Order: sequence, then C-alpha cells, then structure tokens
Amino acid sequence: MKDYIKHINKDFESRARLGIMSVLMVTESVNFSYLKEALQLTDGNLSSHLRTLEEAGYLQVEKQFIGRKPSTSYQATKQGTTAFKNHLDALERLILTNKNQD
Amino acid sequence: MKDYIKHINKDFESRARLGIMSVLMVTESVNFSYLKEALQLTDGNLSSHLRTLEEAGYLQVEKQFIGRKPSTSYQATKQGTTAFKNHLDALERLILTNKNQD
Repeated sequence: MKDYIKHINKDFESRARLGIMSVLMVTESVNFSYLKEALQLTDGNLSSHLRTLEEAGYLQVEKQFIGRKPSTSYQATKQGTTAFKNHLDALERLILTNKNQD
Repeated sequence: MKDYIKHINKDFESRARLGIMSVLMVTESVNFSYLKEALQLTDGNLSSHLRTLEEAGYLQVEKQFIGRKPSTSYQATKQGTTAFKNHLDALERLILTNKNQD
C-alpha cells in the first residue's frame, strides 16, 4: 500500500470527525452546542462521533454546571492533536501526489 | 458549517476510496488485481467500494476477455475526476486552516 494511504487514520475519515478535530485544534475547549452549530449535526450524530473520538483517546470530556445548567465541554488530548496532525500530513501527501500528476 | 467542510465529499471519505481514486488519477485504466494489490484490500471490500463509486458515476467499468481470461478494468469518469479534485481542494483548505493556527 502506498505509504501516505497507510497513514490516513480511519478514526478521522468522516467529515464530521474531521470537523470536530479541526474545531478543537483552534479552540482549546468547546461545548456541545457550539460543535453542533458549527458542524450542523444532529445531537445523536454528534454524540456518536464524539464518543468514538473519546474512546480512541483523542479528546477529553468535562462535565460541569454553569449556574444550574449542566454543560459538557470537549478538548483535544495531546495524543489527539498528534494523531490529527499526522492524519493531515498523510492527506497532504496524497494531495501533492495527485497534483504532481496534473 | 465551515465552507471547506461542506465541500468534503462523503463518497470519498474512506481511505479505500481515496486510494482507488488516487490510483485512477494516475493511471488511465486499471484492473481489479492491480487495485487489490496497491490498496491491500480484500476482494469483498474492494468490490463494495468500487460499486459505490460506480453508482455515484465516478468510475466506469469495462469487462473484457484477455485470451480466455475475463478481466475487469476501471477508469475514472470526467465527473469522478472533477468531484475528486474538488474533494482534494476542500481537504487542502482544511489542512491550510489548521496549519495557520500553529
């Protein structure tokens, strides 16, 4: 298999997860509603992608109360940041390889 | 939703389909065994991804006999080439956006 394809991380394949990780690279900590709005996902869909990323160790979840309102926020772990950067590098190599064939 | 995320094409999300389209950008026509070897996929897995891409109109299939041996070959359609380039452009924007935040 071509090297760059092997380094494309299946955990980040979906558009939703690419989006979640992109947001978390920019913002240290975001809450559920922010992600939902930014990525235009349903609650169920977003929850499921967040759970996958959490289980892979790529993000951590913090539950707290703001006043009496529960709020859940998410931030990328160091492992998640590194893995996502490697994924983007692999995608970049794939793009460059394709461009060089134009 | 961020514009570049909206343009990421769900049909090309999976690593296998990224790989298939990449190979078809480089080589005008390839046969099943070549793809299988290049992408290290099982017959079933490769067939299923090829079918999805064919149904989306992104590749066309040609069945012929080489001597007495049947051979199936695949090539990207014009639509497939355009769609894949747009997908790579969207990924490139996502990468650039992430890099600029370093």
